[in-house]
Amino acid sequence: MKKVINNPENVVKEMIEGFIFANSDKFRKLENVNGIINKEGKDKVAIVTGGGSGHEPLFLGFVGEGLADGAAIGNVFAAPSPNTVQEVSKAVDTGKGVLFIYGNYSGDVLNFDMAAEFLEMEDIETRTVTVADDVASAPYDRKKDRRGIAGDVFVLKVAGAAAEKGLSLDEVTKVAQKASDQSFSMGVALSPGTIPDSGDPTFTLADDEIELGMGIHGEPGMERSKLVPADELTEKLMDKLLAESHIEKGDEVSVLINGLGSTTLLELFIVNRKVAQILNEKGINVYDMDANSYCTTQEMGGFSISLLKLDDELKELYDAPANSPYYHK
Amino acid sequence: MKKVINNPENVVKEMIEGFIFANSDKFRKLENVNGIINKEGKDKVAIVTGGGSGHEPLFLGFVGEGLADGAAIGNVFAAPSPNTVQEVSKAVDTGKGVLFIYGNYSGDVLNFDMAAEFLEMEDIETRTVTVADDVASAPYDRKKDRRGIAGDVFVLKVAGAAAEKGLSLDEVTKVAQKASDQSFSMGVALSPGTIPDSGDPTFTLADDEIELGMGIHGEPGMERSKLVPADELTEKLMDKLLAESHIEKGDEVSVLINGLGSTTLLELFIVNRKVAQILNEKGINVYDMDANSYCTTQEMGGFSISLLKLDDELKELYDAPANSPYYHK
Repeated sequence: MKKVINNPENVVKEMIEGFIFANSDKFRKLENVNGIINKEGKDKVAIVTGGGSGHEPLFLGFVGEGLADGAAIGNVFAAPSPNTVQEVSKAVDTGKGVLFIYGNYSGDVLNFDMAAEFLEMEDIETRTVTVADDVASAPYDRKKDRRGIAGDVFVLKVAGAAAEKGLSLDEVTKVAQKASDQSFSMGVALSPGTIPDSGDPTFTLADDEIELGMGIHGEPGMERSKLVPADELTEKLMDKLLAESHIEKGDEVSVLINGLGSTTLLELFIVNRKVAQILNEKGINVYDMDANSYCTTQEMGGFSISLLKLDDELKELYDAPANSPYYHK
Repeated sequence: MKKVINNPENVVKEMIEGFIFANSDKFRKLENVNGIINKEGKDKVAIVTGGGSGHEPLFLGFVGEGLADGAAIGNVFAAPSPNTVQEVSKAVDTGKGVLFIYGNYSGDVLNFDMAAEFLEMEDIETRTVTVADDVASAPYDRKKDRRGIAGDVFVLKVAGAAAEKGLSLDEVTKVAQKASDQSFSMGVALSPGTIPDSGDPTFTLADDEIELGMGIHGEPGMERSKLVPADELTEKLMDKLLAESHIEKGDEVSVLINGLGSTTLLELFIVNRKVAQILNEKGINVYDMDANSYCTTQEMGGFSISLLKLDDELKELYDAPANSPYYHK
């Protein structure tokens, strides 16, 4: 796979430089670490997100009004260092504490936890909400063990709005945790992405094969099968997603159809159409729908369907303004 | 290439249905044609855009506040029918006339022109601005013969703002024409997209080969070469783009790095970094930069660099609010 890069060792550094050139009025990079912060520091609880590079626009594209205040950027598919998380947190903390929001992967957990310990020694209070929405990665009764995929978007949206509203660190954490608890996603892989540093594909699949529930880094899924028409595929995913989320008739949800890289908007809309039809048939109320590629794995083919089960509190926060270069509400 | 579709004959119909499910609060599909309009009809000059499907989020994703009022959607890579353009125009006209904005392709010109004739018979006044920004497709002294690619975004932005401001049909047309005249793009192809109906690639390129200036439908470019590092490639494109646009020291530009489908944001940022450096070195003032995949060709690999040469009038319109599902300002 051809990649438009220079020295593979510099992709993250150069990506961040290019991002900052495009957004220098709003954001800046910290001097010694791969951290990006919103220049407009508001007097509120700070939200810090982050993770490996390669999933753009997550995470750096979700720094902005009503979303994250800073992003700690790791190398491609690698957690940001504790030092990076620490520096970003110090740069955005206004004394009201910092909430970490990131996908539930062991490397990220380790490094964000270490950063939290260092920050405690510097009297900066932190809380953590790990996003654990991928229903293919663990059963319902082990929800907290699930991997984090596109559900990050829901949790950042809700937490960002709660912080803008002036809630306390514990209050923002509580509602962000609720958003994570009520986020459920199910994906399908069609083709691999390429790791920019090595040029290697993240996995292999036959020309007519797909894998249901595969993780965004190629983590094993639930079932390999032949490619089936979009409606049949969407039904399969929705069956599993609804069973594993316990979302049922009368519930209200926001929907996100997230493309993994090379799957086109045309295809995402075709999936969205079927998701809407299924939810309507089942008497599940659709509050909002979005189709976009927010959480990618380079040019990986495939998509995920995410549902956020709403209540009045979550709806109010979901509807609040949000504005970053790659997400707007 | 695996595609998430059902019957290939239904991709456009189902795509539009999925789009409307996601945006039913703001937009509606016209009953008998593949046309989408903004429900909130404002008393102003109407902007109608359109073209073939397969380039999403263009064109339907650019209907919204400060952008287009309606989009006429053709089949994949095929112009919308005159009847579709006509129906969309009738649905959005408020008596102040309709400005057509679309890329300069013969099929689109033919059908929009026919629609204009029919509309004249119904006493609906129309004007046309074809976007002709691709410097690889014709020399500077035949600017108007150039193909339209990502420059559509600049022209829609400027024209949409002018219409919102309450300008007359002739005034909106004049400034939209200026935006088209001052939009210049240069692209490079890395890999083909797939036509969803047939499953065929739009062209072929060897594994280590790229084509400078190839059109978004695979129209012949200027030069095939081996893949080179991002900075070298960007320099080559910028040399040609600046020569063919007559943009020089002291000028002020907005920049758009447009991904064609599977080229990642990480790569677009790396290109943007080099573009910023080149413009800075040459003393060309950068007013704004954006990197996104607005004008795609399915999962085609590659990108284009677009420059809009600004003056005070264009800057004011460029900065005005705009809000559609896939473009925000």
